[in-house]
Amino acid sequence: MAGIDMGGTNTVVGLVTSHGECLCEKTFRTQESPDFSGFIDKVIAVIGDLKKGLDGKYTLVGVGVGAPNGSYITGEIIDAPNLRWKGVLPLSSELSSKLGVPVFITNDANAATLGEMHFGAARGMKNFVYITLGTGLGSGFVVDGNLLLGSEGFAGELGHTSVKPSGRKCGCGKKGCLETYVSAPGLRRTAFKLLSDSILPSALRSRTYENISARVIAEFALQGDKVAQEAFEYTGEILGIALANVVAMLNPEAIFLFGGLSNAGNLIFEPTKRHMEKNLSPIFKNKVKLLPSGLGNKNAAVLGASALIWEGIAKKNQ
Amino acid sequence: MAGIDMGGTNTVVGLVTSHGECLCEKTFRTQESPDFSGFIDKVIAVIGDLKKGLDGKYTLVGVGVGAPNGSYITGEIIDAPNLRWKGVLPLSSELSSKLGVPVFITNDANAATLGEMHFGAARGMKNFVYITLGTGLGSGFVVDGNLLLGSEGFAGELGHTSVKPSGRKCGCGKKGCLETYVSAPGLRRTAFKLLSDSILPSALRSRTYENISARVIAEFALQGDKVAQEAFEYTGEILGIALANVVAMLNPEAIFLFGGLSNAGNLIFEPTKRHMEKNLSPIFKNKVKLLPSGLGNKNAAVLGASALIWEGIAKKNQ
Repeated sequence: MAGIDMGGTNTVVGLVTSHGECLCEKTFRTQESPDFSGFIDKVIAVIGDLKKGLDGKYTLVGVGVGAPNGSYITGEIIDAPNLRWKGVLPLSSELSSKLGVPVFITNDANAATLGEMHFGAARGMKNFVYITLGTGLGSGFVVDGNLLLGSEGFAGELGHTSVKPSGRKCGCGKKGCLETYVSAPGLRRTAFKLLSDSILPSALRSRTYENISARVIAEFALQGDKVAQEAFEYTGEILGIALANVVAMLNPEAIFLFGGLSNAGNLIFEPTKRHMEKNLSPIFKNKVKLLPSGLGNKNAAVLGASALIWEGIAKKNQ
Repeated sequence: MAGIDMGGTNTVVGLVTSHGECLCEKTFRTQESPDFSGFIDKVIAVIGDLKKGLDGKYTLVGVGVGAPNGSYITGEIIDAPNLRWKGVLPLSSELSSKLGVPVFITNDANAATLGEMHFGAARGMKNFVYITLGTGLGSGFVVDGNLLLGSEGFAGELGHTSVKPSGRKCGCGKKGCLETYVSAPGLRRTAFKLLSDSILPSALRSRTYENISARVIAEFALQGDKVAQEAFEYTGEILGIALANVVAMLNPEAIFLFGGLSNAGNLIFEPTKRHMEKNLSPIFKNKVKLLPSGLGNKNAAVLGASALIWEGIAKKNQ
């Protein structure tokens, strides 16, 4: 089967076995075609190329796609802010009619969640929360063994819940969204706020805004830079409070942190866990595991997108 | 079947048909017995009395209980702050062994949610959120046709999510919980805050704290009292923002407001809806219905507790 991780910049197409082994993959620029049908043609050509390399040993049984604003329920991409093609894009029906196999889509965070559930550290868990920390904050909720989709397939937008109603401007048009604080750019915004608020010396003071990344802040924090450390502490506080709220609502057994910012390890895990515990009601304290992904360097979104096919086929047969 | 609404003050036992008709009910003081086994004996005696009045026309097939901190998964009440009996109370097993029928329990908000789903305005809905506004704020989430329980059965504690991390003290020990703002006592706290912040004249200024209730504030607001009106506006703002966050996470088709404070009608519905819409991402705007309960003056918790039995039996047969 094919798993496709469609991002605003790159699209990764992988051919994956039913055991979660990625046989081969190829990456191309998502938006090189002026119209959406060009993207569809490109995907089909790439799948064809990849299949050729496998010498007919495998059969394509389905395609799963993780796409921005992808709805599992309608099979469409709807008003994705990061794509040049606007409105409603019938991705599932177009790919399916041309390839002759079922095509299932969901958003990128949900795809990664399924990857963890089928092939990673969440195997066997029935209730867990998956948080991807990258250029944004995405989330997927698994409830009673199923991905929580909601009435239109758009559930799981934790990144756009408001944590400070008159806080930082968000790309979505709202203010104070969680991802304006907890994401790689959010960490950078926090570092700059701290540079202006404090008078502490910091290696960050000799860098431009463009030259500061989450990775740089992590490096400086490990070297003892107080401002960089405080930036992680603040990020962990906001995330910890948000996760305590999620626990009160969903009562999961574990929460996973995945994606670029989670690679900072204890710099982000330790303050997040501490503030989460501090903000939990007694009934939930010291019960919820905060874990890193078990997928390591594997492409969780490609694996998860391919896992969508099993989910989709299982639901159809219910 | 029997539906039991067990509250900190009163317990209502009702005998209910499978169509949701409450044949008879009886209320007693929950905590009159010094030990928990006395409560169990009282429930059994009341069910016996009520059955006698029906002249053997009906058979008791099961008992459902909505109880504070009741876990559907373990059948126990765990550390309920409002009960004199502390620790873990094995309600389900004790009642079941003495009555010889299955006994299912959940918390009171979940019971009311099931009442609305089986017998009220949520019939046919697969994804909705139910909010009870009384002395606290309870909530139940229905996802894909099932009550969201979480790993231990304690999901749905929206009232104890933090909306202002350093805000009002809550009875649960935390600060800034949603129910310290959005509940009957929360409305009163807001009115007093406004009386101290503003210099507006208000009929509330001649009342003591104990003599102000949500009902009184509603009456004054309808008579044009500016402070009372502002108290509802503020309550609706906090609730609207919280509900917009819930929509982003769960993508429900409708949200119901139930319980004492919701009887204030447009005083609470209008500002809540306005602030919810204002805080929704474009993808969710103008889609989510905000509705009153369809159960009117019926005892939703008793009906819902009885509906637990169908839920429980259906799950056992899966």
